[in-house]
Amino acid sequence: MSRLVVIGADAAGMSAASQARRMLPADRLDIVAFERGHFASYSACGIPYWVGGQVTDRDALIARTPQEHRARGIDLRMRTEVTEIDPARQRVHAVDLESGREYWTSYDHLVIATGARPVRPPMPGIDAPGVHGVQSLDDGQALLDTLDGNRGRRAVVVGAGYIGVEMAEALINRGYEVTVVNRGPEPMATLDPDMGRLVHTAMEGLGITMVGDAEVSAILTGEDGRVRGVATKDAEYPADVVVLGIGVRPETSLSGAAGLPLGAHGGLLTDRAMRVRGHENIWAGGDCVEVLDLVSGQERHIALGTHANKHGQVIGTNVGGGYATFPGVVGTAVSKVCDLEIARTGLREKDARRVGLKFETVTVESTSRAGYYPGAAPMTVKMLAERRTGRLLGVQIVGREGAAKRVDVAAVVLTAGLTVEQMTALDLGYAPPFSPVWDPVLVAARKAAAKVRSRTGHTG
Amino acid sequence: MSRLVVIGADAAGMSAASQARRMLPADRLDIVAFERGHFASYSACGIPYWVGGQVTDRDALIARTPQEHRARGIDLRMRTEVTEIDPARQRVHAVDLESGREYWTSYDHLVIATGARPVRPPMPGIDAPGVHGVQSLDDGQALLDTLDGNRGRRAVVVGAGYIGVEMAEALINRGYEVTVVNRGPEPMATLDPDMGRLVHTAMEGLGITMVGDAEVSAILTGEDGRVRGVATKDAEYPADVVVLGIGVRPETSLSGAAGLPLGAHGGLLTDRAMRVRGHENIWAGGDCVEVLDLVSGQERHIALGTHANKHGQVIGTNVGGGYATFPGVVGTAVSKVCDLEIARTGLREKDARRVGLKFETVTVESTSRAGYYPGAAPMTVKMLAERRTGRLLGVQIVGREGAAKRVDVAAVVLTAGLTVEQMTALDLGYAPPFSPVWDPVLVAARKAAAKVRSRTGHTG
Repeated sequence: MSRLVVIGADAAGMSAASQARRMLPADRLDIVAFERGHFASYSACGIPYWVGGQVTDRDALIARTPQEHRARGIDLRMRTEVTEIDPARQRVHAVDLESGREYWTSYDHLVIATGARPVRPPMPGIDAPGVHGVQSLDDGQALLDTLDGNRGRRAVVVGAGYIGVEMAEALINRGYEVTVVNRGPEPMATLDPDMGRLVHTAMEGLGITMVGDAEVSAILTGEDGRVRGVATKDAEYPADVVVLGIGVRPETSLSGAAGLPLGAHGGLLTDRAMRVRGHENIWAGGDCVEVLDLVSGQERHIALGTHANKHGQVIGTNVGGGYATFPGVVGTAVSKVCDLEIARTGLREKDARRVGLKFETVTVESTSRAGYYPGAAPMTVKMLAERRTGRLLGVQIVGREGAAKRVDVAAVVLTAGLTVEQMTALDLGYAPPFSPVWDPVLVAARKAAAKVRSRTGHTG
Repeated sequence: MSRLVVIGADAAGMSAASQARRMLPADRLDIVAFERGHFASYSACGIPYWVGGQVTDRDALIARTPQEHRARGIDLRMRTEVTEIDPARQRVHAVDLESGREYWTSYDHLVIATGARPVRPPMPGIDAPGVHGVQSLDDGQALLDTLDGNRGRRAVVVGAGYIGVEMAEALINRGYEVTVVNRGPEPMATLDPDMGRLVHTAMEGLGITMVGDAEVSAILTGEDGRVRGVATKDAEYPADVVVLGIGVRPETSLSGAAGLPLGAHGGLLTDRAMRVRGHENIWAGGDCVEVLDLVSGQERHIALGTHANKHGQVIGTNVGGGYATFPGVVGTAVSKVCDLEIARTGLREKDARRVGLKFETVTVESTSRAGYYPGAAPMTVKMLAERRTGRLLGVQIVGREGAAKRVDVAAVVLTAGLTVEQMTALDLGYAPPFSPVWDPVLVAARKAAAKVRSRTGHTG
């Protein structure tokens, strides 16, 4: 009998535990999972839609309850925080947050799935009532309680990344006047600014006030101590509620204290089997690790449930005596603001420059369906291809229905290392309700291939 | 000055002419295009939606009018039929169908883009008024005239392939009682029967009467000579209008008579530059050629506008002095019946058997969006992977919104030759409105990879 200890009972941790359990029965592997929060195995990505009202039941976001995990033979200890990892003696120190009881538990395999923590800049008023993060179900419930009790109707969202734009939509859906204050010039810094500009315009069209190039320096509070707005260097924006969407950092303080290897972004470093580098029996996955970007060849930090699930699957397989690897990511992400769909994969211009790649860029306008078919919606596709080789480097798409998931084609192309010339011949599904006769991605590939050829002096 | 002659002025022919014109000005290349019909450059794929009423204007299906082609320096001769190709003397014989004038025209480059002709089995009544093909705009107009003048409300569609199911939808939209009579047991023979069964059930749910394993032996006519139904060996089905959707064959009678090489399916054989094999200056593309199936390694005939456009682009580039190739297809096709989406790519079970491949199959049920997100619709994904190697061989998807274009991921995987194990790690776009945390295609890949492993005796 050996023991697997899991720290953090969300996507990565519980996927690992569940997969290990599938591979090894309870008489061969003891599984103990620690979770300091109130919930396990929930979809944090779903929180904006819960706040926005599309998802009416919080419990719908919970993929599996603690009881269900326990029924499958996983000793899940909720509200229990691991406060120390001791790799030398293969044990962790845990505190039951309800009873205060402290104890050490030894492990044969350890899975670190401590997730990420939201960036909360140390500014005046940051902890005032009415200022909310949206990282956990607890955060979401607290925000909903504020919204329900609010007599005001003005919201400020700080940050215009994925969480920021999704929360802007949620608050619009709740009937709020929404102002988004963003440090960069355009929303969605994961896109190049020219594509972010399209999001900017669309959000303004939805009635959202966008403030760019503006850093929030203070949260303003009223005499009752509650939030009443935010201040930048230049202006003040009144608010009855403030949502922080500034991004997240790997939660690796425990790991760092235990001497485990952390990367430049603060995430744990693992090998492709998701084993923490230099530690035979310690594994890590989800939002607390750095992952290899297959396009740039560099490590990145990406907090995304789909990666966390894959990591957990790989770890559980390996802990269970099988073999699996997570080769890396290409940086695919999709989102929406009301009916505007936003997608990206691979490198932005500045990413490509940072790793010394020379490239060509093209941007094309197309439609989601044949132009004559009802509901055909405009779509803008930007594509980056490496100079000389023509290898696809990245794609960004902004449009309406059917825009977001079209990026998947580019994600596979990036994984396979195909060129934009090769892309032009891809046999993608065509019928008038689903695509123009040249799919928008192929239109961009044709233009990119022509640009690569013209630069290399080839005709045709 | 050299001359390019194009036979057939639809997708392949006019794409070739337009691309050649882009590459070479009028003082270097003379372009003459012959079209025996009344229309050039139209979307035949759009006809069902025009008949069904989603597209209200026939002209919306016309991508470019003859006048527009002429304005770009292409001498397009409508209603002029080429009746002979004379490769030895590099000339074609043409007949002006309006005036009866006949003449020879010489060429330096010839593009054959004669398209396909609908299968019209020689049976009693096949030419009766009220029996319609839907291959051309003329066909579509004739059908619409019949529908508008009809006092009856019963339609029989013969054949349950793409055209058949799309026409069934069109006729339902027009308020008809629709019966589809199909030779095979299930509709959509381009799917395996188990997946065709799902389409069958859905079509019945839409109120369409499906008759399988039934071959139409005669068209029944009334005393006025008009259609009144169809007969099979076992039964008769009353009808006020009959639509033939039995499929198409390459239109290569001219080419065959000229001694050009035809394949097993009756289509012209070309090299990858779309040059007719053995003929330096004759090119062919679109529905009259056979294409290489990259998965099976064999030639196929696929009549599809998106391929025709690509062929034309490649031919025009090569004629214009550039270089381009069409490497082949993987057999991607998407369609819909009302809100049911149908997609396939790669090999069906019988295709794989025919080429001697051993394979594993899996079928999974998933949803289009996160299960908790409103509008999440069920989706069935079937996947074939080669035994031992794990190489993806084919994917079929039947579902609602978002099902059809998901097949594109598999199309790229087939093109790149990845395995189902490699697929499990693909970085596909994830957000609750667009996908479950494991995309349905990844769920199928995981299951397929596990089956391949279990067969090879590997664990994990």
